[in-house]
Amino acid sequence: MIVRKYGGSSVATPERIRRIAEKLALHAKDGTRLAVVVSAMGKTTNGLIELAGGVTKNPEPRELDMLLSTGEQVTAALLAMALNDMGVPAISYNAFQLGMVTTASYGNARIVDLDVGKLSKELERRGVVVITGFQGVTEDGDLTTLGRGGSDTSAVAIAAKCGCRCEIYSDVAGVYTCDPHVVPGARKLDYITCDEMLELAAQGAKVLHSRAVEIAKKHSVELYCASTFSEERGTYVVGTLPEWLEQPVVTGVTADTNQMKVTVNGFPNDMSVYAAVFDAIAGKGVNIDMISTVSENGHSHLTFTVVDSSVRIARETLESVLSGRTGWTVRVDESVAKVSAVGVGMKSAPGVAARFFVALDKAGVHMVGTTTSEIKISALVPREEAPRAVEFLVREFGLADGPEA
Amino acid sequence: MIVRKYGGSSVATPERIRRIAEKLALHAKDGTRLAVVVSAMGKTTNGLIELAGGVTKNPEPRELDMLLSTGEQVTAALLAMALNDMGVPAISYNAFQLGMVTTASYGNARIVDLDVGKLSKELERRGVVVITGFQGVTEDGDLTTLGRGGSDTSAVAIAAKCGCRCEIYSDVAGVYTCDPHVVPGARKLDYITCDEMLELAAQGAKVLHSRAVEIAKKHSVELYCASTFSEERGTYVVGTLPEWLEQPVVTGVTADTNQMKVTVNGFPNDMSVYAAVFDAIAGKGVNIDMISTVSENGHSHLTFTVVDSSVRIARETLESVLSGRTGWTVRVDESVAKVSAVGVGMKSAPGVAARFFVALDKAGVHMVGTTTSEIKISALVPREEAPRAVEFLVREFGLADGPEA
Repeated sequence: MIVRKYGGSSVATPERIRRIAEKLALHAKDGTRLAVVVSAMGKTTNGLIELAGGVTKNPEPRELDMLLSTGEQVTAALLAMALNDMGVPAISYNAFQLGMVTTASYGNARIVDLDVGKLSKELERRGVVVITGFQGVTEDGDLTTLGRGGSDTSAVAIAAKCGCRCEIYSDVAGVYTCDPHVVPGARKLDYITCDEMLELAAQGAKVLHSRAVEIAKKHSVELYCASTFSEERGTYVVGTLPEWLEQPVVTGVTADTNQMKVTVNGFPNDMSVYAAVFDAIAGKGVNIDMISTVSENGHSHLTFTVVDSSVRIARETLESVLSGRTGWTVRVDESVAKVSAVGVGMKSAPGVAARFFVALDKAGVHMVGTTTSEIKISALVPREEAPRAVEFLVREFGLADGPEA
Repeated sequence: MIVRKYGGSSVATPERIRRIAEKLALHAKDGTRLAVVVSAMGKTTNGLIELAGGVTKNPEPRELDMLLSTGEQVTAALLAMALNDMGVPAISYNAFQLGMVTTASYGNARIVDLDVGKLSKELERRGVVVITGFQGVTEDGDLTTLGRGGSDTSAVAIAAKCGCRCEIYSDVAGVYTCDPHVVPGARKLDYITCDEMLELAAQGAKVLHSRAVEIAKKHSVELYCASTFSEERGTYVVGTLPEWLEQPVVTGVTADTNQMKVTVNGFPNDMSVYAAVFDAIAGKGVNIDMISTVSENGHSHLTFTVVDSSVRIARETLESVLSGRTGWTVRVDESVAKVSAVGVGMKSAPGVAARFFVALDKAGVHMVGTTTSEIKISALVPREEAPRAVEFLVREFGLADGPEA
């Protein structure tokens, strides 16, 4: 048994759905049992959100999930039809029909239970079961969605529960050392560790959803991602790299251009105020990143980054917590980017940070902030300098092919 | 408590959905509990069928129902959002979530059970529950659809079970004496009996789905149909007309131009062959109508009518049953129409048939077949002569206003 997941652009038209059915038909004839998880066709989800926008500016989250969960149902039914048409016994199910129970956090629900009994029975009978990704059902029977990229999570969760391999197919041929749209010689990786993949995803790589990788890591799911319509070899996302593989120091470089920097001058140097501010911001569901502080004379300068779409709410929350105090000012720098280098090899290779900063210096890039983790170094840079920063980092760590490398 | 149903053109755009929400908001503020049944937006169902056509010529009926049932879900979610946006507590449910259990005849399922416990509880809590029409769920949990016009059936079934009134809103302002698009002076009826409505629906009137009227009749549901966006008074569909109402002899005239006539010359005059032919045709799910035979010298001439879309399968089935015999020929007349006059008053008024035939004669229409029931007379006429036949029948029975009447 294998779980396969096809993304939105892979199923964007009836023709593409037929092509996927043809590929699945070949596998099904081998006797492989296939649980196929599908996303909504192409831009369907955006179209549905637009429809909701025609009705209200603030759609009730429960009703929005009711609306959005129709998208994958359409794809699932069409793919099952196409398979039946090719003589492959197949049946489609909504995730709720297969017991994909989630929390009731509409729009961003988490899977809490999954009873694969019915799925197993159907796979015994027909060989192919097509399942709607991205969605689930609360214990009370209300439909939920798992948030953007949630279909990856659905697929890996099913594979984890069934103890089988999970293959994620999309319009990207695998995991690259850096964005191939930005760096022409970007190299596709044969293997990447879950930890590196998590860091890359967190730093803006879009090929795999972080939550999916987390589940894969936790349950040791064999994860593979590759292109839907090419036969090119993809990337294995593994717990540890095969021993024979030469361990690179840096596996990938990313640029997240979706960040803004918030700076507070004159922040009270008082832990209870820090706690109050970050607690309030977290309470609004906003993730903040790259927090750093410098203290002098009982006051601090605080900076942190947030994604573009959350900056307004982060700023308002901050200002409201500080409203009883004086002597502080807030500034938002709207045009920054976070450039990161990720690699498990960093743990054992000293001097990676030095090479990272030297590369940025050679590129003439002005760093306005930095953070590091065990397997990652990030620098905040002016947004327009991000491509140049990536180019020099890629060159420094030998991550691209072609004349530049 | 009232059940209201809105048809596809009434909910075709987000703007129209908002307008319906505004109307419902007014009622909800009275304290009326509203179960609102909705169809798919505009031409959504046709669009989904086209999508399926891009994948296969013969979609598996179960998968087609999985596909089509997304249409109403979109409308239900949007209408609930719009109501919430106006401060009206409302929630949407798929029919399957409210226990609308049907047979497993995909594409044409019949309601077998309906547990209104959850609906009643939600109506207590919020006042407005929006429900997907047209669909249900089998005992095994598979999604089904009730066939074209099935949303009417959903609505009346819910009203029957809840013992409340059912209002059907669409782009038609009520039941007319004849098609207002064909006869300019067509009169809207204040009242019509269920029996008449059933005959009119069977003869091609599209305002209400027959199955919905059958359920209304059986369970004495007070049924009302009116225009969605006008304040014009609609039509009550009742068990018996109010006593004070002067009973017209003929209530309505219809023309069904979707008919073809099949003639078999030299049909064996043997009941077992009749039985075999009609049994085989019924086995293919084809309804036939206006059967008539004339016998001479041990052979018969058999004619019957079928709807356009079924004529090929009816003819093939017929020919296959007769294939072991000789001496017969089949002819299909593709351009006929069935013109009918319907009225409960016929039961007590003699001479209606005579007036019917005289009117056709005055119109110079050539009748090629006829059938009657207790409250209906139908004539098969050349298709191009149908409008003229209707015009003269409407004049004869005084069914239109204006200079012609």
